[in-house]
Amino acid sequence: MSELLVVGSVAFDTIHNHLGSHARILGGSAVYASLAACQLAPVRLVGVVGKDFPRGAVDMLRGRGIDTTGLEVANGETFHWEGRYADDLTSRETIQTDLNVFADFEPKIPPAFRDSPFVMLGNIAPQLQLHVLDQIENPTLVIADTMNLWIDTALDALKELLTRVDILVINEEEARQLTGFHHPLAVAEALRALGPETVIVKRGEYGALLFLDEDIFCAPAYPLKAVADPTGAGDSFAGGFLGYLSESGHTDLRQAVVCGSATASFCVQDVGVGALVELTREDVQTRIRDFRELTSF
Amino acid sequence: MSELLVVGSVAFDTIHNHLGSHARILGGSAVYASLAACQLAPVRLVGVVGKDFPRGAVDMLRGRGIDTTGLEVANGETFHWEGRYADDLTSRETIQTDLNVFADFEPKIPPAFRDSPFVMLGNIAPQLQLHVLDQIENPTLVIADTMNLWIDTALDALKELLTRVDILVINEEEARQLTGFHHPLAVAEALRALGPETVIVKRGEYGALLFLDEDIFCAPAYPLKAVADPTGAGDSFAGGFLGYLSESGHTDLRQAVVCGSATASFCVQDVGVGALVELTREDVQTRIRDFRELTSF
Repeated sequence: MSELLVVGSVAFDTIHNHLGSHARILGGSAVYASLAACQLAPVRLVGVVGKDFPRGAVDMLRGRGIDTTGLEVANGETFHWEGRYADDLTSRETIQTDLNVFADFEPKIPPAFRDSPFVMLGNIAPQLQLHVLDQIENPTLVIADTMNLWIDTALDALKELLTRVDILVINEEEARQLTGFHHPLAVAEALRALGPETVIVKRGEYGALLFLDEDIFCAPAYPLKAVADPTGAGDSFAGGFLGYLSESGHTDLRQAVVCGSATASFCVQDVGVGALVELTREDVQTRIRDFRELTSF
Repeated sequence: MSELLVVGSVAFDTIHNHLGSHARILGGSAVYASLAACQLAPVRLVGVVGKDFPRGAVDMLRGRGIDTTGLEVANGETFHWEGRYADDLTSRETIQTDLNVFADFEPKIPPAFRDSPFVMLGNIAPQLQLHVLDQIENPTLVIADTMNLWIDTALDALKELLTRVDILVINEEEARQLTGFHHPLAVAEALRALGPETVIVKRGEYGALLFLDEDIFCAPAYPLKAVADPTGAGDSFAGGFLGYLSESGHTDLRQAVVCGSATASFCVQDVGVGALVELTREDVQTRIRDFRELTSF
């Protein structure tokens, strides 16, 4: 098993959805990805929180085997996002974003983390993602997520980042925005021309597409009867994906994509990180078998 | 091989899209479905055209082995639809609909067609679909398509129809409209409660879901670099699906779904029926193998 460094946001989310209002629950890309990966591989978390961040949350992360040495506690309050989902959960509006200590976040990779072979750059400013990479010695595999905000406001830095990552994980809508193309093969070709050897296009409730050279893999999302909360699904996917590759001996990207989809399917079945904090390797393995049954013909 | 009866619209389509304007090209649900099925099974077409319908189009259908005995020629002009697609082809607006002879269409099943074991009820008014079923002796398998227009205007007839079909093929958006649910398992459960043992939810560029008892199968759409024209994709899917089952010895619904997806993927690569009129069984078989490569892990 290889160590997996996860860098991203650590946040409180206030979520209003069809189930009610959920005030100041634990969230953030680094939290979702770390919890998704931790039953597969040793996770090293890097992020920033404020003085208000509860001891219990840190204990929970540590209890899941996550190394929180890189969780900086800064003067001020923890990043807080508040949003409201449409009843069908396919769209959401932001009510308020309080960056707080996250506004001045400069990821500092602890010396003991600099040899991390696997690196996940969660969805933060590409300048910060680059700053993380500058501190890592010789990573085996770097995976990055991004979002429309950075396409709009930090395109040059994003393009520089893309020349330095092995795998880009991106939402389909944002991939279309970044490339100007609509159809999957054209989108993937344009993204790979920007640098990453491998591209994973996340399609939400429709699954994910993996592009590596001429090879294409299409993974469904797990069909559910109900979804509680899609927050963090993409980060859980990435965490499950990279966690699988960090587990000893795995090199099969297709299996890793299915592991990511399986992990994300648990995530959305509960509000916030509720499902992830209880997830076991066995749960994930069982669902991977379900995916095989779901797709074989 | 068992005979496959296809009932639906036969039309001229005027299509405006990113490639230009295509005036009065051959279309209609029965035409797309018949051309999709004809290299797999003997197809019996039932529809209505006007006096303006060109001999050459009938000859083309016959040349593909389609029995046009049931193609009624009525006084008046052929059904004509004109529409414009958005550049990304994910939406379209109707500019004009001239029902013409289709307004008074009452499908008459020729005596020689009444023993058809496989019946495809293309997307026409559910009252007409019921009228077709009344004329069939003892079908082995009945499959029906429908659309939002009939959910809005003929819900009672549609519900009666659903108690008499084995397989419902329906767009995801329309399935959500009909059931009031969003997530796939809830949608499928509600649809199956209306009658059909099997439900296929078409998701356009995201593929299709098959629900049969507790069994769920998820088929992707074939990833393309470019799409010329999505018109008829759903009908081609249904034609390829049922054509596969009509081919001798096939009972595997999963394989049939993949055959439908493969057939539809050819359809959208050319404008109108351009790709379907040249499609061979071998083309479809090759693409079915591509689907296996695309989904296996």
